[in-house]
Amino acid sequence: MVTKNQIKLVVSLKQKKYRSQHGLFVVEGEKLVNELLDAGLKSYRIFVDDVGLAQKFERSELVSGKTLKQMSSLTRPSGVLGVFHMMGSEALGSNDWVVVLDAVRDPGNLGTIIRLCDWFGIKRLVCSIDTVDCYNPKVLQATMGSIARVNIQYTDLKGFLDKTDMPIYGAYMDGEPVYGSNMAEKGVLVMGNEANGVSDEVGKFITQKISIPQFGGTTTESLNVATATAILLNEIRRG
Amino acid sequence: MVTKNQIKLVVSLKQKKYRSQHGLFVVEGEKLVNELLDAGLKSYRIFVDDVGLAQKFERSELVSGKTLKQMSSLTRPSGVLGVFHMMGSEALGSNDWVVVLDAVRDPGNLGTIIRLCDWFGIKRLVCSIDTVDCYNPKVLQATMGSIARVNIQYTDLKGFLDKTDMPIYGAYMDGEPVYGSNMAEKGVLVMGNEANGVSDEVGKFITQKISIPQFGGTTTESLNVATATAILLNEIRRG
Repeated sequence: MVTKNQIKLVVSLKQKKYRSQHGLFVVEGEKLVNELLDAGLKSYRIFVDDVGLAQKFERSELVSGKTLKQMSSLTRPSGVLGVFHMMGSEALGSNDWVVVLDAVRDPGNLGTIIRLCDWFGIKRLVCSIDTVDCYNPKVLQATMGSIARVNIQYTDLKGFLDKTDMPIYGAYMDGEPVYGSNMAEKGVLVMGNEANGVSDEVGKFITQKISIPQFGGTTTESLNVATATAILLNEIRRG
Repeated sequence: MVTKNQIKLVVSLKQKKYRSQHGLFVVEGEKLVNELLDAGLKSYRIFVDDVGLAQKFERSELVSGKTLKQMSSLTRPSGVLGVFHMMGSEALGSNDWVVVLDAVRDPGNLGTIIRLCDWFGIKRLVCSIDTVDCYNPKVLQATMGSIARVNIQYTDLKGFLDKTDMPIYGAYMDGEPVYGSNMAEKGVLVMGNEANGVSDEVGKFITQKISIPQFGGTTTESLNVATATAILLNEIRRG
């Protein structure tokens, strides 16, 4: 039997404050819960509202549809809600490229960027404190299982950038075209905020400004930060 | 004074059926309305709920906040609602790359792809009949002004692909790595549905299957169709 206190705990995890406090986060949907389990993440509890689903998840707890709806962030709960332990963020050494995000605010963008890091084998993602929380449900929905394979750290970027001895590339509208820019073997790629790009504060640490050439001629808008990251990571890896 | 019938007309444009019937569509927000006007699109009516905004838009009509809310698709209407005439879709010749979408269903993905076509100077986008409508409000929110600079056509893909004499590239998980694949000067790039990729029916016309190499090693998920399009258009243009 699920207790009122347990329900209250799960509901509280909708807020970042309580996620950090308890070291727990919620994902919903059979597929996503399975992906995190496959990736080796430790589940705290798995709730299902159907006997068929209960058989699919070892040690899951059967609750009523009403209770699941109470715990869920979705308008139409999917029948499976997993509560997972957060991964520790190890201080990895930097033997490869590191992606740095400076105040990326949109959960869909962060989710897509995590998935891209996974695809391109980037193991380390460093986010400014004001970047959207990677355990936000909308981020998790967009990352799929990738969240388990990329080491994500929230920190003061100035401190981090000051210490690295790798070249620091920043994505700018008026940077040097990336095609000719002879990227290093390893380095740091800084992507900026959706509306304002890389902040001046972080900009001081950039050793090379790069850009994605535009072919249309008339666009005033920049590329979305997630699509720009896709193109730049591809440029880094294609060599 | 806005009449009841005009309000009814604007509300009806939330549905694709009525958009097609009237040849009209709605965009909301000062920035987006301005972008479409700057891009030369013909407005049918512009409604604002504030005198200050009325002065910014020539021939705009002042309505109450309540009326604007009635016409709006947004939970928090932005104060400016423009009704625009659809662009004609000219049968352009094919002097350059054409992007073809096979049943792309997510409005955000289509919006991002239109913006990418604009960025990379792709003038022509051909969509299967079951691709999401490009005048869907969520698509428009993601395209920004790009919708005015890319010629978008909805048609039976088999008929279109059968007639082209350009090479037809299709994005597949198991295609040839795009880095080595010596792309033609001009051609057709086919991107498939979010869940199922390129359909078998359309697949028959593909002359070369291409893929984006994966570096992570363990990912089971494919890249999102919009980020994959970003990388492939960059590959095409970078030469």
